[in-house]
Amino acid sequence: MGARDAQRAADSRSHARRLYAPPMTKRPVCVVIGVGPGIGASLARRFAREGYAVALLARSLEHTRALEGELPESRAFACDASDGASIASAFARIRSELGEPEVLLYNAGSGVFGTFEDVSAEQLEQAWKVNTLGLFHASREVIGAMKARGRGTVLVTGATASLRGGARFAAFAQAKAAQRSLAQSMARTLWPSGVHVAVVIVDGMVDLPRTRAMRGDLPQEAFLAPDDVAEAMWTLHRQPRSAWTFELDVRPHVETW
Amino acid sequence: MGARDAQRAADSRSHARRLYAPPMTKRPVCVVIGVGPGIGASLARRFAREGYAVALLARSLEHTRALEGELPESRAFACDASDGASIASAFARIRSELGEPEVLLYNAGSGVFGTFEDVSAEQLEQAWKVNTLGLFHASREVIGAMKARGRGTVLVTGATASLRGGARFAAFAQAKAAQRSLAQSMARTLWPSGVHVAVVIVDGMVDLPRTRAMRGDLPQEAFLAPDDVAEAMWTLHRQPRSAWTFELDVRPHVETW
Amino acid sequence: MGARDAQRAADSRSHARRLYAPPMTKRPVCVVIGVGPGIGASLARRFAREGYAVALLARSLEHTRALEGELPESRAFACDASDGASIASAFARIRSELGEPEVLLYNAGSGVFGTFEDVSAEQLEQAWKVNTLGLFHASREVIGAMKARGRGTVLVTGATASLRGGARFAAFAQAKAAQRSLAQSMARTLWPSGVHVAVVIVDGMVDLPRTRAMRGDLPQEAFLAPDDVAEAMWTLHRQPRSAWTFELDVRPHVETW
Amino acid sequence: MGARDAQRAADSRSHARRLYAPPMTKRPVCVVIGVGPGIGASLARRFAREGYAVALLARSLEHTRALEGELPESRAFACDASDGASIASAFARIRSELGEPEVLLYNAGSGVFGTFEDVSAEQLEQAWKVNTLGLFHASREVIGAMKARGRGTVLVTGATASLRGGARFAAFAQAKAAQRSLAQSMARTLWPSGVHVAVVIVDGMVDLPRTRAMRGDLPQEAFLAPDDVAEAMWTLHRQPRSAWTFELDVRPHVETW
Repeated sequence: MGARDAQRAADSRSHARRLYAPPMTKRPVCVVIGVGPGIGASLARRFAREGYAVALLARSLEHTRALEGELPESRAFACDASDGASIASAFARIRSELGEPEVLLYNAGSGVFGTFEDVSAEQLEQAWKVNTLGLFHASREVIGAMKARGRGTVLVTGATASLRGGARFAAFAQAKAAQRSLAQSMARTLWPSGVHVAVVIVDGMVDLPRTRAMRGDLPQEAFLAPDDVAEAMWTLHRQPRSAWTFELDVRPHVETW
Repeated sequence: MGARDAQRAADSRSHARRLYAPPMTKRPVCVVIGVGPGIGASLARRFAREGYAVALLARSLEHTRALEGELPESRAFACDASDGASIASAFARIRSELGEPEVLLYNAGSGVFGTFEDVSAEQLEQAWKVNTLGLFHASREVIGAMKARGRGTVLVTGATASLRGGARFAAFAQAKAAQRSLAQSMARTLWPSGVHVAVVIVDGMVDLPRTRAMRGDLPQEAFLAPDDVAEAMWTLHRQPRSAWTFELDVRPHVETW
Repeated sequence: MGARDAQRAADSRSHARRLYAPPMTKRPVCVVIGVGPGIGASLARRFAREGYAVALLARSLEHTRALEGELPESRAFACDASDGASIASAFARIRSELGEPEVLLYNAGSGVFGTFEDVSAEQLEQAWKVNTLGLFHASREVIGAMKARGRGTVLVTGATASLRGGARFAAFAQAKAAQRSLAQSMARTLWPSGVHVAVVIVDGMVDLPRTRAMRGDLPQEAFLAPDDVAEAMWTLHRQPRSAWTFELDVRPHVETW
Repeated sequence: MGARDAQRAADSRSHARRLYAPPMTKRPVCVVIGVGPGIGASLARRFAREGYAVALLARSLEHTRALEGELPESRAFACDASDGASIASAFARIRSELGEPEVLLYNAGSGVFGTFEDVSAEQLEQAWKVNTLGLFHASREVIGAMKARGRGTVLVTGATASLRGGARFAAFAQAKAAQRSLAQSMARTLWPSGVHVAVVIVDGMVDLPRTRAMRGDLPQEAFLAPDDVAEAMWTLHRQPRSAWTFELDVRPHVETW
């Protein structure tokens, strides 16, 4: 099922609720791109708790559908972050249904693993599109209004791979490095206008059913709790502008680094 | 007036108050080393507000005396951070008068400016002692109890110079680089025991009477507010251990970097 | 004139010479990708001087045609580094006409300048393709034979932008960061097999008619001589494998950094 | 036997040779500080081979004595690099016996291993003095003449620990980080005057009897050959000033990093 079909299905499901929902235009709008069971969902919950109307973007609606039920002021949108047209269309709907975003949380970008010899050119390109080009497109959608308002936040979920090209991360690391570099260029351009661009380097394994299954040998404390990463990002959003952070790392206290 | 005399004077001043003061042993103890009118004072206020008994350490008692008046649960101690014996003696008193520290905020280390050709060997060594050796001595004073308790925080105020050796920072930068490296070694050793060691890279000018006078040409927003830096450090202290940060940078939103 | 037409024209021009040329198969083969008037040409000359048959790749044959005349053992191939098919076809010809490459010098990647708000998604993508995807494709063409031989060199021309995302380098920097990360992943995978992958960070302006015209205010010593950069790369190629370098920076001695 | 006594003994041994030796003032002078059986000895041989009169400095004369026999144009000087007076006295003799140094190779600084909890304040300080303060003192001895001549080289042997504070390198890493930072400040100040300051990051185990004994399980190719590191430093010394390197890393091709 493509992104468009998924959207159509989601629309009909939430039709009744929207018809009678009070207008949400008074709430500030937060867009989360890349909402699965991990950091994306935690970010949605964290910002919703603070009163944000949260737009939940993911390629599939599998996870966002459930979150939409859990968070009354949220709304799911199907969006393929690697596709500029898909992003443009999702933001058009966000603007019309929720309003201009004040916060963009760019969490898209799961990795393909493999060495330089394992990965394909297509995987290299897809990784770059999801991580870097998608950040570019999404940011361009929100920057105008943020600058006009003199206030806004764009946070990016980075990874260890943002800082180093590990042998088995040939496709993922180059994409995360590009993403971090782009965020730096953005920060240098946009901070003076009041738009806080920052990166959180997630240096370790996030606690997910998938990672737990993969590494059943590890204790719970070896994993990053998604809610704790979301808290770090919330904190960045709340920083006063005399002391903004561009980059911080987070990892479990028992992680080797 | 040397550190010892200054201490004696401070002692007699606060004698009466201490005689009748309720015991402070129930409050968790936070030690701030390097308390002047800037970040140190803000840290003291921030942690005092959260219920900490704050030990205020500075070579001179000029600033800590005033803070002691402002923060009832704080106490000033004269301490020369470059001198191991002075640190040992200050911590002996802290332990006996306030209790075992749960938080150590290492803010000592103002800079001498000058190129490689301007600075003296003595300035190089003094900078290293205040920034690095002092961190070592002070941390060794608190680590044992923190490990025994399975919990503790050691935060270090870094600077742009922690990351790069600028031409006109020959003495200061080498000391800050050594300090940051030592903090890294400490973090790698102590995090697993529950002791959170982290560094805040202060990348810009802190808003102080002195810096304002020096750069009267700059608007207020070009300076880091000490309270905002203290807030970033408070946030680090509050991080859950599944997602600890080792390093974050803070700078004004208009800073060029 | 597209790459294919340019190639055809070049072919007819060098037809006579090739017919009577002695076979070049005894010479080791070096491929330079990105040959303009600067570093690429210097690399070609440097390796030719050491006895290499040099394949000169550029989108246009404007510069390579002249070099071909100057360096008898070189041969020009039209190649668009951003296009996998164009690279595949160029390497097929290189292998058949010169032999398996022992050295790959990846010098493609001139920059588009502009902030995050100035550049287009197309420019972002094109920069990534020329710098990163092209390195991937070209390296995949040569790695097999290098590993079989247990020896080979892949050198990449990096830039200041490989290390930092400057405000006015939004498209270029993300591409160079990705390229450097990919080279790191490659190095970690390929060094043990005897293939030396390394990056030279060119931190300053290369001395070219174009840059001189742009910055007529600067003295000659403010520019990097292309021959000197080529020398640094030649040196990397010659390193014994007990002490290989992954990355080195080069800049004029008067450069501010 | 202290440095002074060692010197006296060395003096009487080489007395006869010096009496009849041709004056060495025509040869350019290279000073190597930290000459043991490894990189220091290789540096001495490499520069001697190119015609330099080499001053061999080490705390003990154990290794330099043998080298003096092997390299006719070299001379051993006892020098404790952690002691400013000892450096001053060694350089006074170098200047008078060999002439003004054109090259300074700072190779002092073997490491004490141990975590933050293992090492003592004295070890921390001694490491800093040998690595950083010694570099400062020695450089100050040679900079004046180098600037006057508009030409000179100061190269520093760095280590993995120059870049990261590993858990078991608490004393060594902070010292190497300080040393690297000081070299950066020096480079930024001195490059414009024609003095090339650079650092070689030796990332791996140098091939020495001691390291071989420690790691008998490893094959030869897991070690850095001292001659190959010396070659890298010779290459840095020869760089034309339009393309100077500040830092390069060297490691065995099979090293994991």
